[in-house]
Amino acid sequence: MKPIISLTTDFGTGSHFVGSMKAVILSINPEATIVDITHEISRHNILEAAYVIEEAAKRFPKPTIHIVVVDPGVGTDRRPLLAAGEDHYYVAPDNGVLTRVFNNDVFMRVHEVSEEHYTLRSQCRTFHGRDVFAPVGAWMSKLWEAAKFGPIVENYQTLSIPKPSIVKERTVKAEILFCDHFGNIVTNLERSMYEQARKKFPGEIFKVKVGDTVIKDLKTHYFEVANKGDFLALFGSMELLEISAREENAAALIGVAPGEPVYIYFGE
Amino acid sequence: MKPIISLTTDFGTGSHFVGSMKAVILSINPEATIVDITHEISRHNILEAAYVIEEAAKRFPKPTIHIVVVDPGVGTDRRPLLAAGEDHYYVAPDNGVLTRVFNNDVFMRVHEVSEEHYTLRSQCRTFHGRDVFAPVGAWMSKLWEAAKFGPIVENYQTLSIPKPSIVKERTVKAEILFCDHFGNIVTNLERSMYEQARKKFPGEIFKVKVGDTVIKDLKTHYFEVANKGDFLALFGSMELLEISAREENAAALIGVAPGEPVYIYFGE
Amino acid sequence: MKPIISLTTDFGTGSHFVGSMKAVILSINPEATIVDITHEISRHNILEAAYVIEEAAKRFPKPTIHIVVVDPGVGTDRRPLLAAGEDHYYVAPDNGVLTRVFNNDVFMRVHEVSEEHYTLRSQCRTFHGRDVFAPVGAWMSKLWEAAKFGPIVENYQTLSIPKPSIVKERTVKAEILFCDHFGNIVTNLERSMYEQARKKFPGEIFKVKVGDTVIKDLKTHYFEVANKGDFLALFGSMELLEISAREENAAALIGVAPGEPVYIYFGE
Repeated sequence: MKPIISLTTDFGTGSHFVGSMKAVILSINPEATIVDITHEISRHNILEAAYVIEEAAKRFPKPTIHIVVVDPGVGTDRRPLLAAGEDHYYVAPDNGVLTRVFNNDVFMRVHEVSEEHYTLRSQCRTFHGRDVFAPVGAWMSKLWEAAKFGPIVENYQTLSIPKPSIVKERTVKAEILFCDHFGNIVTNLERSMYEQARKKFPGEIFKVKVGDTVIKDLKTHYFEVANKGDFLALFGSMELLEISAREENAAALIGVAPGEPVYIYFGE
Repeated sequence: MKPIISLTTDFGTGSHFVGSMKAVILSINPEATIVDITHEISRHNILEAAYVIEEAAKRFPKPTIHIVVVDPGVGTDRRPLLAAGEDHYYVAPDNGVLTRVFNNDVFMRVHEVSEEHYTLRSQCRTFHGRDVFAPVGAWMSKLWEAAKFGPIVENYQTLSIPKPSIVKERTVKAEILFCDHFGNIVTNLERSMYEQARKKFPGEIFKVKVGDTVIKDLKTHYFEVANKGDFLALFGSMELLEISAREENAAALIGVAPGEPVYIYFGE
Repeated sequence: MKPIISLTTDFGTGSHFVGSMKAVILSINPEATIVDITHEISRHNILEAAYVIEEAAKRFPKPTIHIVVVDPGVGTDRRPLLAAGEDHYYVAPDNGVLTRVFNNDVFMRVHEVSEEHYTLRSQCRTFHGRDVFAPVGAWMSKLWEAAKFGPIVENYQTLSIPKPSIVKERTVKAEILFCDHFGNIVTNLERSMYEQARKKFPGEIFKVKVGDTVIKDLKTHYFEVANKGDFLALFGSMELLEISAREENAAALIGVAPGEPVYIYFGE
């Protein structure tokens, strides 16, 4: 089987960046199949990338090599990492972008990439996507041996991902993680947390307050509300609570941004 | 020859959606070559997608499997379809998005996808692109037998695509279908209709009125007008009448939107 | 090894254009690996494309066939070219878009594509990307013999790329070429010119004036400035002087556009 390498970056597709990364990969391993996950992570948004890569990676054939470059610290001494999980490999800067992957895989071994043999000799200090992460991923797709790239490290960075909390009787405070292309507002309330809370606070009533908007009931698909533009709350494709507007952009309509609170009320 | 699967969606490329679909396809058939047609159909614009897929599909090697996911009714009981045409196969929701393809292929047999074996077991009710359409396309690229997926149906949805009409002597009323990336205004007047009308209303004079703008003469390329920003009318790459502005965005300059009328005058 | 064909256009990814080009390529040569460099060159910006293709092309495996379609004169009598360089091949309109490639490769032989056998029979006068450049690139990936496509020509177009100049003692006037996706302002001052000027005007002081903003010192990476939004000047991934803002969009903050001057002062 041909090796698969996925790419997730905040480079956009408007210049030579992504093409240059692919060129480097194919120069090292012409057999690689390269799959774009996205290049439109919000600029320098490590948290968004952490969720996107965790969600997408698990759908890929095992093993895939996932290169993730959201790297505001490029050119500083932050280390490049090669992480070997149970099913997949990850190449990324040591800045927490793999936090969600790390949290969900107890078999993860994280290597610092210290062997300079596997990176380009001349490194531009602003473009390690091309000069470090692409060649490391490409070499890994030939060698399949993480230990060749450098020693295992324990002290890698992780993000402290905000957790929903109970702020008063029957009310959970969650937080907006990011908004997707459709304007769906993605929160940090996981379906399992919802089920836990519902068990603790039994009843039928469910309300979500985001900005000044209050939404009643939990739906399972967009057309359960009657009209275009009606708001609804549901668990989306990442199993996270999302606030949407039927055929409209909920984030723009409500006027909210990542980091803002969302209150969920579990009534009787 | 490696099987080719094309993707046309309104998912955008800003989140994990397209990457997740490709991951599912490659997990089922690692041999597939996946080609993006576009992921930037205007959100939920079934008509635009109907034109884009019909135009692009016919250029692909025969047979290609075309997955088309513009699916505002995801999660409702609208059926997934697998359509077997003379040259190509199509996987799409039963909402009319294949109307143009159906209209141009008398050999089309349309199957409802009812065999659950070929879709993911756990289906997110908001993301059938990943959980239904991607796996059906991928399995089809291994099996090449549409009847395995479900029975032939006759009562599939089609859009009633607006047709140009003669509104008074020598004047045809057409309609704006959509505007492309360059701001070219694409109408529903096909070249064959134009030729028919010109024959019926012989002469030299040709005028197009769109919004408050009147354009004289039919051109064949953008540089037939003298200056940057000059408007012109021509038959574009889809053989539909388009209104363009040389090196500018005609749709923004004139201020029009899909559904609005365009009047074509065939003078003597 | 499978042949590689790269694509660089200003078509955007919002309609059928890019998908149609890939369909034509795969119909002619199903073995081709197609790699997008970018489809978001600013509309009709031949200069931007000239820099992007030169920068990206050299990273690809040798030989790659690079198709470049930024083609405001489509439909006029400008010629299609097939250029055979030392390492790579290029298919593009004769409008100067290959100027940077030509300037950096003394072995370049430029052929006019005159053999109609290698283009589509029915050519839309507004879409030579699909009907001329894609099929020429695809046929080249099977034949690898540029002379089959037409005779060598000498009188091809080149852009006069603005050069920095010394406008007064210790001051160089450069020009903004384009701004990238991150808002980095890319100028025409190459690192070698900088080193030459620094030698001529020895000292420690370095200042860049762009719009009303003055930036001191030359940095090597974004985090050498203390705060988010701080401006800095550095040589970017193209070895050109760029003005950036840490984690912000410098072009938007300063309010500048391509073609505007940038003054560089080499003080003692």
